[in-house]
Amino acid sequence: MKDDAGLAAGTMPGGFVWGAVRAGIKASGNLDVAVAVPTAGAVGAAMYTSNRVVAAPVTIGRRHLLSTGGRVGAVLANAGNANCATGAPGIDGCLATCVAAAESFGCIFDEVIPSSTGIIGVPFPAEKVVAAMPTLKSAVGNTPEHAEAFARAIMTTDTRVKMAHTTIPIHEEGSFPTAVVRIWGCAKGAGMIGPQVGAPVGSTAPAPHATMLVYLFTDIAADVPELNAALAAAVQPSFNSISIDGDTSTNDTVLLVASGASGVQLSRELVPAFDSALAYVCKSLAHQIVADGEGVTHVITLDIRGAASESDAALVAKAIANSPLCKTAWSSGDPNWGRLLAAAGYSGAVFQAERVRIWIGAEPVFEYGARASAFDEAAAHTAMMQPEYTITIDLGEGDGACRFLTCDLTAEYVRINADYST
Amino acid sequence: MKDDAGLAAGTMPGGFVWGAVRAGIKASGNLDVAVAVPTAGAVGAAMYTSNRVVAAPVTIGRRHLLSTGGRVGAVLANAGNANCATGAPGIDGCLATCVAAAESFGCIFDEVIPSSTGIIGVPFPAEKVVAAMPTLKSAVGNTPEHAEAFARAIMTTDTRVKMAHTTIPIHEEGSFPTAVVRIWGCAKGAGMIGPQVGAPVGSTAPAPHATMLVYLFTDIAADVPELNAALAAAVQPSFNSISIDGDTSTNDTVLLVASGASGVQLSRELVPAFDSALAYVCKSLAHQIVADGEGVTHVITLDIRGAASESDAALVAKAIANSPLCKTAWSSGDPNWGRLLAAAGYSGAVFQAERVRIWIGAEPVFEYGARASAFDEAAAHTAMMQPEYTITIDLGEGDGACRFLTCDLTAEYVRINADYST
Repeated sequence: MKDDAGLAAGTMPGGFVWGAVRAGIKASGNLDVAVAVPTAGAVGAAMYTSNRVVAAPVTIGRRHLLSTGGRVGAVLANAGNANCATGAPGIDGCLATCVAAAESFGCIFDEVIPSSTGIIGVPFPAEKVVAAMPTLKSAVGNTPEHAEAFARAIMTTDTRVKMAHTTIPIHEEGSFPTAVVRIWGCAKGAGMIGPQVGAPVGSTAPAPHATMLVYLFTDIAADVPELNAALAAAVQPSFNSISIDGDTSTNDTVLLVASGASGVQLSRELVPAFDSALAYVCKSLAHQIVADGEGVTHVITLDIRGAASESDAALVAKAIANSPLCKTAWSSGDPNWGRLLAAAGYSGAVFQAERVRIWIGAEPVFEYGARASAFDEAAAHTAMMQPEYTITIDLGEGDGACRFLTCDLTAEYVRINADYST
Repeated sequence: MKDDAGLAAGTMPGGFVWGAVRAGIKASGNLDVAVAVPTAGAVGAAMYTSNRVVAAPVTIGRRHLLSTGGRVGAVLANAGNANCATGAPGIDGCLATCVAAAESFGCIFDEVIPSSTGIIGVPFPAEKVVAAMPTLKSAVGNTPEHAEAFARAIMTTDTRVKMAHTTIPIHEEGSFPTAVVRIWGCAKGAGMIGPQVGAPVGSTAPAPHATMLVYLFTDIAADVPELNAALAAAVQPSFNSISIDGDTSTNDTVLLVASGASGVQLSRELVPAFDSALAYVCKSLAHQIVADGEGVTHVITLDIRGAASESDAALVAKAIANSPLCKTAWSSGDPNWGRLLAAAGYSGAVFQAERVRIWIGAEPVFEYGARASAFDEAAAHTAMMQPEYTITIDLGEGDGACRFLTCDLTAEYVRINADYST
């Protein structure tokens, strides 16, 4: 509670300051270098892309978290350049920015967790980040506006800033809350979104899946294994269950940093409430990413059930979410459910078409091998003209299920990503 | 040589007649039911989609080839309706068309190999196919024009008819050719092209990969195992090494039918020449499919080499071929090679970015972890403005290699596949 005015006041977790500046990396001249600084130390958990090609800040961030045992002295991010496929100069440049941030914010260079997003393969302008440090140091503060500046600086093709927060009131035996834990997070990502973030750094958990930058700040007191467990559980049904274009980035990062400033320890009794709160923030951010996806006009929830296994359910969801034919049909509200069935069929999941049922919204479209007897094309089209709706597929095999968030593919996506002029 | 006028005359293999009619299945009123009939019997090999959901004619075709040991009395195809996800009435309808064709063309119903292409899930109008039989019977002949009518009737969103042929002159000890073997083939396919045809029906070969209909006719004399082996070898580097949108169809079919009318037996000595000729026809048709892909403006050959294994090379090729970000960049000639590297990175193939080299056309763009020293963005862009070019990726790991044919993703593809009005 060190930095907070009181239990009820404010949405920002205590123990952090945030800030951002214009360092001249983005061609637009917008905010492009951001920092978050724990004012009295913090520990963190991170999950990085499972892409075999990773950006320099991913390499460095992993190394720093391992070498310090998870201590976080500063979170440094830039947009406008991914610092990926930039060779040894990219690594050197990333380290130079960590050293500069450590000097400015009073920590050791390996307590700085760096991130970059933007174009791959263009030499990283470390000198611009280093030169911006004095301005950045004078720009930090603990207000929502400061945090929002952080969130804005990491945007690339995003059209909207993505932030979410929640609080966990701490009761003792049914009394009024005696303390409060806060979580605030922000994210960037609109394209190259097919997240596959691996196990938390330093953990040996099996790798689940991120094409985006996500920063989660909380003032709970917790150790790194506790944060790893909480983060892994929250990421699977949120960031690892979305796709815009299926392209898994080289820079995906989800970072959870805990300051302890609330004075509340993450006790075993508190784990369910904390996990639930973290899941809420992650799902909100994941939804914001898909809804702001490049060229997106419809957000679709794929509710896959009755699969032989959870992994089979995920195979079906991902095949449909990444099928150009399904995604283009969604853009016009075409209830061409045959494309859904075909994608499920090549997904690798085990099932028999004769046992499958499919609904678009509440409209049955396919059942037991053929078009549903109650199929109403106009009603299905109407359901698909909503900005958000659910497609439910019951494979009729077992108890495997998943919910996966995706979107349509429009000519605008093509325009954004083909945009090039020499 | 029964049906041919002489060694040099004509491109059509002997022993077949072809024909097509307008049966009213296509809304356009174009040719939509086609037949090919071996005039004195034939045997065939077929490779069908590996999609778990298959159309009724795939189920029936497999069953027929197995029950007859590969005898082919007629090849019956329609466009405008896929007869997939049509339940028991779809199976019954397909069988009814086989019975009708058998009666018209003088064979047994299970010697008829049916195929359908078009929209999935719409009840199959078997009665239109059956009603067209008398007209179809009067429409057949052995000229190139008859065969071209067959090829036109199976078109859906194809803008061009796809045909290829070759001849194998048979010499005895260096003399002038004493006989000739002919191969003529045709194909349809422009979308839902991410072929995955399995092992030949009745063989136990491992499954390689088709989203398309392909018909190959030859007048060589061969038995079914010989045809299976020839077809499997020809399909892998052709139809199983292309992708337009990565969507694997429920109806993919590659059928090779041999009439024996040339009088030439497929001897062990002749296998290399026949395989080579068949491969030529298949590669030509595969190239025609990609070049006529929906909305395609550029055809790209992915030349992947230096992979740890052939399967790793194929993983890299398919990840790139199906990446929306790579495909949109190709549409504008944007030499954004970082997207190529990122897709390779999430493909699942094992490699280290530090050992990788990438060329666009003859232009080096990436080498050993960073942008190539000789990178010339304008030259790379110029290379990418050609209608066809090659992207070469050397992973620096081993001897695994593959060549894979793909195309760009344009707003026109989206328009074609989103086109819907109620």
